[in-house]
Amino acid sequence: MKAAEQRRYSPRGTVILIGGAEDKGRDGAILSEIARLSAKDPIVICTAGSSFPEETAERYRSAFRALGVKSVPHLRVRTRQDAEGARAVELIAAAKVFFFTGGDQLRIASIVGGTPLHRAIEELHRSGGVIAGTSAGASALGETMPYSVVEEEHRVAAALSLAPGLRLLNDVVIDQHFAQRGRLGRLVAAVTENPRLLGIGIDENTAVVWKKASFTVMGTGAVYVVDGHELTRSNLGTAPAGAAMSAFDIRLHVLNANDSFDVAAGRPQQRC
Amino acid sequence: MKAAEQRRYSPRGTVILIGGAEDKGRDGAILSEIARLSAKDPIVICTAGSSFPEETAERYRSAFRALGVKSVPHLRVRTRQDAEGARAVELIAAAKVFFFTGGDQLRIASIVGGTPLHRAIEELHRSGGVIAGTSAGASALGETMPYSVVEEEHRVAAALSLAPGLRLLNDVVIDQHFAQRGRLGRLVAAVTENPRLLGIGIDENTAVVWKKASFTVMGTGAVYVVDGHELTRSNLGTAPAGAAMSAFDIRLHVLNANDSFDVAAGRPQQRC
Repeated sequence: MKAAEQRRYSPRGTVILIGGAEDKGRDGAILSEIARLSAKDPIVICTAGSSFPEETAERYRSAFRALGVKSVPHLRVRTRQDAEGARAVELIAAAKVFFFTGGDQLRIASIVGGTPLHRAIEELHRSGGVIAGTSAGASALGETMPYSVVEEEHRVAAALSLAPGLRLLNDVVIDQHFAQRGRLGRLVAAVTENPRLLGIGIDENTAVVWKKASFTVMGTGAVYVVDGHELTRSNLGTAPAGAAMSAFDIRLHVLNANDSFDVAAGRPQQRC
Repeated sequence: MKAAEQRRYSPRGTVILIGGAEDKGRDGAILSEIARLSAKDPIVICTAGSSFPEETAERYRSAFRALGVKSVPHLRVRTRQDAEGARAVELIAAAKVFFFTGGDQLRIASIVGGTPLHRAIEELHRSGGVIAGTSAGASALGETMPYSVVEEEHRVAAALSLAPGLRLLNDVVIDQHFAQRGRLGRLVAAVTENPRLLGIGIDENTAVVWKKASFTVMGTGAVYVVDGHELTRSNLGTAPAGAAMSAFDIRLHVLNANDSFDVAAGRPQQRC
């Protein structure tokens, strides 16, 4: 069985992964699409990853209000206690869209993972809602997350800097600010460590809109799909942490806003 | 016929491509290997690409002298007239190794291309000598060279920023400072534009040692081989210059110092 054939996704909802630095003006296609999908219901802004939660929330509140969304509540989540409180669950119950801002994906996962808030997000996804995340907020939605801050991300050590994500999407590892920060090395390392996972690298002002077992691309940049299921060799697991990476036969697809990807089949497609 | 099958290399000599920022101390493996290959014959340092030719030449002269090389003449080449003069050809005739420092690959190609100096370099390669280049000096040795300075190198426009190189190696496009500067986008664009070319991205303090139709890797980083011969679709040639790139089914190999690559077969191999 090919790795791709294992990937099945049943929720009715939509996951939107943004590579960071999305256009926050009225012409910004990504936030406009999220506003449209909210269908006038509230968009909950969750700043669990941010060191500047008030400023961050205010930026998205302004952007979404300018796009016609009336209610944009800010969910401050600084501790696991916050994520276990009643307010989080109540806010989500009234919303159609839940939006993770950026910051630090490890902070998001360590504060939200396994809490009632986490379960409420999953339930919103199952029942047809939209879960969106930008930058660290996008990475947090994958099964595992790269979070190395080292410069030399092509080293074997980078592959060890993976942490479990909120797993709105199974079998997926998501990276962001992709071309802008030169993150191929760490995404290849993550996929090589276990090719069961599909690697998805998203450029800034670019998004993946994921429904069931396929996604489309939107925005001005590219999305890189790193597929390791034909991998013939790698040195992960055998080389010391400081060694340079070695990995043969990775398949790479570069997608733009005219493209989609059939995750079940593991194949890119041109839409138009 | 697969693209790889067209790649034939007959010269007896060696081409050494360095990704920049190589260790210049006595323990630096790459410059040590070049010193060893010089077999006590002169190493000609050519600073055609550099804006600071004296300082650059002095740095390499010191490094190679510390490694036991007695004669390290500096070939200043600031104009095509310099590259057409007798001194260039005389220096090479007495040397075993010719070394291009970094700087600007377009400057190297536009000053050296098609001159008697260029022909003397080719003759040294044919007759068993070593042609080495670091950073821009490595890119200049390929058939074509990426030289975009734009930040958004994943755009179609990046693919148009290619200039003919000195072509010591046919069917090859070389990029450097690869992981450090996040240059996957521009290398994929170059390969996608014509998959006849094999893309080779070299990390800092890392080198490719190319003899006939295969190369080995040395140094502390990785070398990325981008192979487009299975490409099923791309938007180069149809999309406007500002569009994001789209390219399906690129094969990617990440090699370290234990690996080699059989260019004729188009396959990576593990040496140890």
